[in-house]
Amino acid sequence: MASKYRNFRNSVPWLLLFLEAVFIILFYFFFSGVDVITSDFHTAFQDVSHMVIFGFGFFLSFLKRYGLSSIGFNLLIVVLGVQWSVLIEGFLFLSHSAKEDYLRSIIKAAVSVTAVVISFAAILGKANPVQLVVMTIMEIAAFHVSRWINNMYLQIADSATMMHVHLFGAYFGLAASCSFPALQPSSEKNADTPTSSLLSVLGTLFLWVFWPSFNSALAVEKKNGIIYSTYFALAVSAVTAFALSVLTTKDGKLSMAHIHRATLAGGVAVGYAADSIQYPWIAMILGLLATVIAILGSHFLQRSLPPAIKIRDVSGVHFTFGLPAVLGALAHLILYII
Amino acid sequence: MASKYRNFRNSVPWLLLFLEAVFIILFYFFFSGVDVITSDFHTAFQDVSHMVIFGFGFFLSFLKRYGLSSIGFNLLIVVLGVQWSVLIEGFLFLSHSAKEDYLRSIIKAAVSVTAVVISFAAILGKANPVQLVVMTIMEIAAFHVSRWINNMYLQIADSATMMHVHLFGAYFGLAASCSFPALQPSSEKNADTPTSSLLSVLGTLFLWVFWPSFNSALAVEKKNGIIYSTYFALAVSAVTAFALSVLTTKDGKLSMAHIHRATLAGGVAVGYAADSIQYPWIAMILGLLATVIAILGSHFLQRSLPPAIKIRDVSGVHFTFGLPAVLGALAHLILYII
Amino acid sequence: MASKYRNFRNSVPWLLLFLEAVFIILFYFFFSGVDVITSDFHTAFQDVSHMVIFGFGFFLSFLKRYGLSSIGFNLLIVVLGVQWSVLIEGFLFLSHSAKEDYLRSIIKAAVSVTAVVISFAAILGKANPVQLVVMTIMEIAAFHVSRWINNMYLQIADSATMMHVHLFGAYFGLAASCSFPALQPSSEKNADTPTSSLLSVLGTLFLWVFWPSFNSALAVEKKNGIIYSTYFALAVSAVTAFALSVLTTKDGKLSMAHIHRATLAGGVAVGYAADSIQYPWIAMILGLLATVIAILGSHFLQRSLPPAIKIRDVSGVHFTFGLPAVLGALAHLILYII
Repeated sequence: MASKYRNFRNSVPWLLLFLEAVFIILFYFFFSGVDVITSDFHTAFQDVSHMVIFGFGFFLSFLKRYGLSSIGFNLLIVVLGVQWSVLIEGFLFLSHSAKEDYLRSIIKAAVSVTAVVISFAAILGKANPVQLVVMTIMEIAAFHVSRWINNMYLQIADSATMMHVHLFGAYFGLAASCSFPALQPSSEKNADTPTSSLLSVLGTLFLWVFWPSFNSALAVEKKNGIIYSTYFALAVSAVTAFALSVLTTKDGKLSMAHIHRATLAGGVAVGYAADSIQYPWIAMILGLLATVIAILGSHFLQRSLPPAIKIRDVSGVHFTFGLPAVLGALAHLILYII
Repeated sequence: MASKYRNFRNSVPWLLLFLEAVFIILFYFFFSGVDVITSDFHTAFQDVSHMVIFGFGFFLSFLKRYGLSSIGFNLLIVVLGVQWSVLIEGFLFLSHSAKEDYLRSIIKAAVSVTAVVISFAAILGKANPVQLVVMTIMEIAAFHVSRWINNMYLQIADSATMMHVHLFGAYFGLAASCSFPALQPSSEKNADTPTSSLLSVLGTLFLWVFWPSFNSALAVEKKNGIIYSTYFALAVSAVTAFALSVLTTKDGKLSMAHIHRATLAGGVAVGYAADSIQYPWIAMILGLLATVIAILGSHFLQRSLPPAIKIRDVSGVHFTFGLPAVLGALAHLILYII
Repeated sequence: MASKYRNFRNSVPWLLLFLEAVFIILFYFFFSGVDVITSDFHTAFQDVSHMVIFGFGFFLSFLKRYGLSSIGFNLLIVVLGVQWSVLIEGFLFLSHSAKEDYLRSIIKAAVSVTAVVISFAAILGKANPVQLVVMTIMEIAAFHVSRWINNMYLQIADSATMMHVHLFGAYFGLAASCSFPALQPSSEKNADTPTSSLLSVLGTLFLWVFWPSFNSALAVEKKNGIIYSTYFALAVSAVTAFALSVLTTKDGKLSMAHIHRATLAGGVAVGYAADSIQYPWIAMILGLLATVIAILGSHFLQRSLPPAIKIRDVSGVHFTFGLPAVLGALAHLILYII
């Protein structure tokens, strides 16, 4: 432990200061002539920033030994990721298109960073800070390159590719988690406390409240429609999560872990398909299905798989973000064809 | 206890899933052709949603044995109530008027739901989940029918009838609380802990901060004026609550229960009368009077009444929401006549 | 202790009620004819109000024996200060200029009140409520008079003088703290607990998230540019605070006190110079320098000074708000000359 911390002390600060120096130099050379385009992204910017810092920070704080650290590392990932994301976005997209609004570029960067935060959730408590910083840099780059390919060769709209963020983050995180040893289920590191569950419920509520703003932050035309669909999908998700949680736990009490994981599934599914949803009932059915998949998936799949194959998924990222995003992608395809 | 929980387990999930199925079918038949009317209700929507989920959730979490459950049941009541309220509102009002904006209909539904949440506060810790769900369905229906009568026969404006929500919620809750046995004052169920008082103070602050947005969410013309009046009424309320709390407690220390109950009284009173208030000093006097009523009322009335008649009011809903709303109604009448 | 509380009980409530009576009378005579000017300050108003109540309230709650009281006294200072500030602003500025928007006047008042809150942080746990109320009244008056002098004789723009608030608050508070005896470093009053550090981290995050709105709340033209600069300065500040905190603590672990104090330094520095910053890299360098000053300052200066001269600064106000504001003022001057 001592040697690990010495190592950590030696490398992390210099890595961070080196990255900052590189970022400032890149900004000096490439972001010196951006025009001031005034537009009204203030509300969306504030909501997304609030959600990414508070929502995910608290959402991740359910491990007892890791509470405040989760909030701190979440902040570190977000602030590093946003700077890096604005730079890459500038290199890949702005060279061949019009200049972008100041605040819209931060919103985009903050949305991209959620991919890293979701991946972080899958390896929570296992990675050391150097690994987290390296993962942030690599994952942001990979995400923007995948968006650029989608945009250039498949002609998918810019705001649609941003919504692939949950899918990308969940499976990147699951892949990354395979390179770490699995924690013992009985390990103290996996325990939670009343305070830490309170914080993670708080985080779930923050995410729930700001999810409509998140899904609609980059939309231009159908903004209100997307907010409406997302709200109804989340509402049905929450009701279904309560019902299924009481049905699947042994003593018929509410399981906070279920609420924690399943109330957001509807928002993830709708995020992917938001552009194609015309009527609220479609969003409501998507919300219902997403929660059923998230709760029954974690109930049955986790049990039936042999431990060796079992995905080593600390926060249930596969069921909260992975499968609902796949459902959303399917729904998007079906609605597009019809 | 065991039989009660078995009963709870058998009925609640199926009741919730049945309601969701009904809601989705009704949305399928009646909400298929709503046009996309774009307007700027995003900020008001976000603020009201944030306030209803966080503010009331934490406001209600002051009982030790009931902390996280209050937050969970509050979420359940809100998401069920909003869906049901949008449906009823559509049946009663939209058939004979223009189609409504997407987000405005959610804001209206979220405001209506506060009636149920206030009633829930009066029976906190006594009702089981089935009773809560039934109360949500019945109270929302009753509230909208009362609004419809006001609107059709008394020609009261739509946004004004929405502000009756505190009065309706408080007295509906007090009526409902009569059908439950009173808790023993010394019961452990009535106790609070440092963490639960912290959460309820947090809830009070959330409500305080978002109350101006809440009161002005549905206003169109005098939005800024209503925000201004509400802010000053709340400010005077808070100062008066500090002063009276120190005066009325035995050891001259601040009583968190007083702060909890009385800082919001000004916002409730002004909500009712907001349309008629021309000058800030009227709002300030209303805020002062509302807090005096809330604190002195709970100080003297509770003591002087014989226990048999005493209203069985767990959260002091009568003094926080009931009497200040009556004061607001009187002020509205007086200002209207002058 | 008993005599102190009796004294407190005797004077505080009547002082508060007397001030409220004076405020209502002044509003009655001087604020009766304000026109309704509708403009879109709703988002800025909501963000600033949220930040001042929550951010500073929790930021100040790190002392164990003083947690909930800090939040309560912060609310009291804000609500008293806002009323008083609107009145003084009206006397000094409105007599010779156009009438001002409703919400903008509350935003200005809430920004002014942060001076008092920062001063309160410097004397946290030492002052009694009567002293706090008197300090609020005096400091708001002094701040507006200094703004009026700047505006009349030095022709500095209105929104620029508002940003002197951190500098004014920090040094007013440090001056005030000299009249109180220094606490023993080992005193129980100076201790913190896990819950109180959690709350103060929560407060830091609230301030971090809302700082861009705070800095841009009163700007009219370059609003988006100021939000952008502030966000990048805060991001670099946070990264630098992590790096330096690991470097300067003995065991190489993150120090929450450093994060608490230094992540906001960039926002303070940019607030002062926001008007003159043209490129994001300037804001990023300012954020870096401000954090270096805040952390290294508290690391070396505190140690090398003899205890008698040492500034008696409970919350490190000098390093969080004082020195970064001086840096911002210097940067403003240099950028202005170039």
